[in-house]
Amino acid sequence: MTVNALFLAPSDDWTTYEAALKRAFAAAGLKDIALAPQMAPGEVDYIIYAPSRKTLDFDFTPYRRTKAVLSLWAGVEKIVGNATLTMPLARMVDPGMTQSMAEWVTGHVMRYHLGMDADIVNPEHRWLPRSKPLAQNRRVCILGMGELGQATARMLTGIGFAVHGWSRSPKEIDGVETHHGDSGLQAALAKADILVLLLPNTPETTNTLNARRLALLPPGAFVINPGRGTLIDDAGLIAALDSGQIAHATLDVFRVEPLPADHPFWAHPKVTVTPHIAAETRPETASQVIAENIRRGETGEPFLYLVDRARGY
Amino acid sequence: MTVNALFLAPSDDWTTYEAALKRAFAAAGLKDIALAPQMAPGEVDYIIYAPSRKTLDFDFTPYRRTKAVLSLWAGVEKIVGNATLTMPLARMVDPGMTQSMAEWVTGHVMRYHLGMDADIVNPEHRWLPRSKPLAQNRRVCILGMGELGQATARMLTGIGFAVHGWSRSPKEIDGVETHHGDSGLQAALAKADILVLLLPNTPETTNTLNARRLALLPPGAFVINPGRGTLIDDAGLIAALDSGQIAHATLDVFRVEPLPADHPFWAHPKVTVTPHIAAETRPETASQVIAENIRRGETGEPFLYLVDRARGY
Repeated sequence: MTVNALFLAPSDDWTTYEAALKRAFAAAGLKDIALAPQMAPGEVDYIIYAPSRKTLDFDFTPYRRTKAVLSLWAGVEKIVGNATLTMPLARMVDPGMTQSMAEWVTGHVMRYHLGMDADIVNPEHRWLPRSKPLAQNRRVCILGMGELGQATARMLTGIGFAVHGWSRSPKEIDGVETHHGDSGLQAALAKADILVLLLPNTPETTNTLNARRLALLPPGAFVINPGRGTLIDDAGLIAALDSGQIAHATLDVFRVEPLPADHPFWAHPKVTVTPHIAAETRPETASQVIAENIRRGETGEPFLYLVDRARGY
Repeated sequence: MTVNALFLAPSDDWTTYEAALKRAFAAAGLKDIALAPQMAPGEVDYIIYAPSRKTLDFDFTPYRRTKAVLSLWAGVEKIVGNATLTMPLARMVDPGMTQSMAEWVTGHVMRYHLGMDADIVNPEHRWLPRSKPLAQNRRVCILGMGELGQATARMLTGIGFAVHGWSRSPKEIDGVETHHGDSGLQAALAKADILVLLLPNTPETTNTLNARRLALLPPGAFVINPGRGTLIDDAGLIAALDSGQIAHATLDVFRVEPLPADHPFWAHPKVTVTPHIAAETRPETASQVIAENIRRGETGEPFLYLVDRARGY
């Protein structure tokens, strides 16, 4: 019997993904499978999902036969609260995206570690040698030790950085000093010469980096946010930059994207804005993850990367 | 009997090194040792050397008792041709300096890989998302696979880059595609999306990167030179930047340092000048290397890091 997979995502994504998904289905041995951006709800076996305007308040109720909703995005905050979504929901864990995130964070950690900006922008042509600590003497703290946080921690420890990781629940990770819970967060922030935000977007993580927590960082700390825009209290961060408590911030994600032209981050001399490029889902590798989950659904094996609805990720 | 170690280096270095060397001597079990910036030539057992104006044409002839000249610098081009230097000459292989070099190169490779400059300098506040290849699809070629080149290659392969290495003589290095000799150089350059120069300064390596070799690089390649200023034909590089054959260059070392104010590198929009900061010798770790070599000299063990005078490094 034909397996029906509905592609419920912006039409640009259909252009990007159609061929890659079909290649991945073939490679996974899924022969009798139909993929389309429109289908009768009662005939859909799997929904491949990415958020768009039309899917924000999507009604999943008529999709009674659907075995799973498979997200193309790692973050599922735009769908996890949808009460009509009663079938299993899997988030994307794309090895290409994970590597991309680790590379982006590592690059900006190195940039701060080496003080590169003073060389890249040097209009007066000043020759000013300076010493820097070795990576082993630079403490990088990652908030959020899921797939992305752990891959980033591995890359940074490989270079030699003193990496600290914080997560809601306890974790043990080779070569990383881990912290958890509320008291652990204080200890982790106190050691963050460079702070990296890789938490999911949940009601609990909103404004994680507020004025009170910014004050717990070592004076002159650097902040890197490739996680979610909601993790930062924007006004609190700007005040901490202005006071010198935070030396500089590189922000890839924002509450509204593209970042509005009048947002103070754009013109702030201590902020680098990057256009949500840290980690993109890569069609080839992401399609393989989708295909593997459909294969599992068809053979009765457990789905990979199921979302815990109570936690929200 | 007292071992006499002459500190033959600029007086600034004496301020930096005196305490670190004495700590390292004690830690190495060297008890009866005298260290001073002046000594009667006939009584000197070891010379700890760094180049200065007064040491450029230094006459080592009266130092008949001296067992070795121990360089504080990795590069020995300013002393290796001195005909009066007939005792063993050891160069510095400082683990702190090696790590520093690998970190600096990795940082600038990541900077080019991620296209960071477009985000760091973005006066019109343009939101322009773009894709980048993963590190595995970015080829970094290192010319010079000594201590520094190998440490740098290890750090880059750890991140996932496709690393190629070239050296004069054949080498095998885990995870690195190695090339050697003249024909190997052509093959290596053809694969250098990002080229890193870590060759020593010898008559053979002068102008290694000339117009002919620049033309062998993939169009739009990036050049990073933390090695020696003499490795590059400056006019050839500027022509290749102007034609677009080379996209951008980051240069840490120059024929004359500090780089003169009227040198075209300063104002060139496709050149980043850094003030010879990639790898500094670190007093604590370098002093341990000096102490270890004196300990070896006193117990009759072979010296570490002896310079091959014929090769020049």
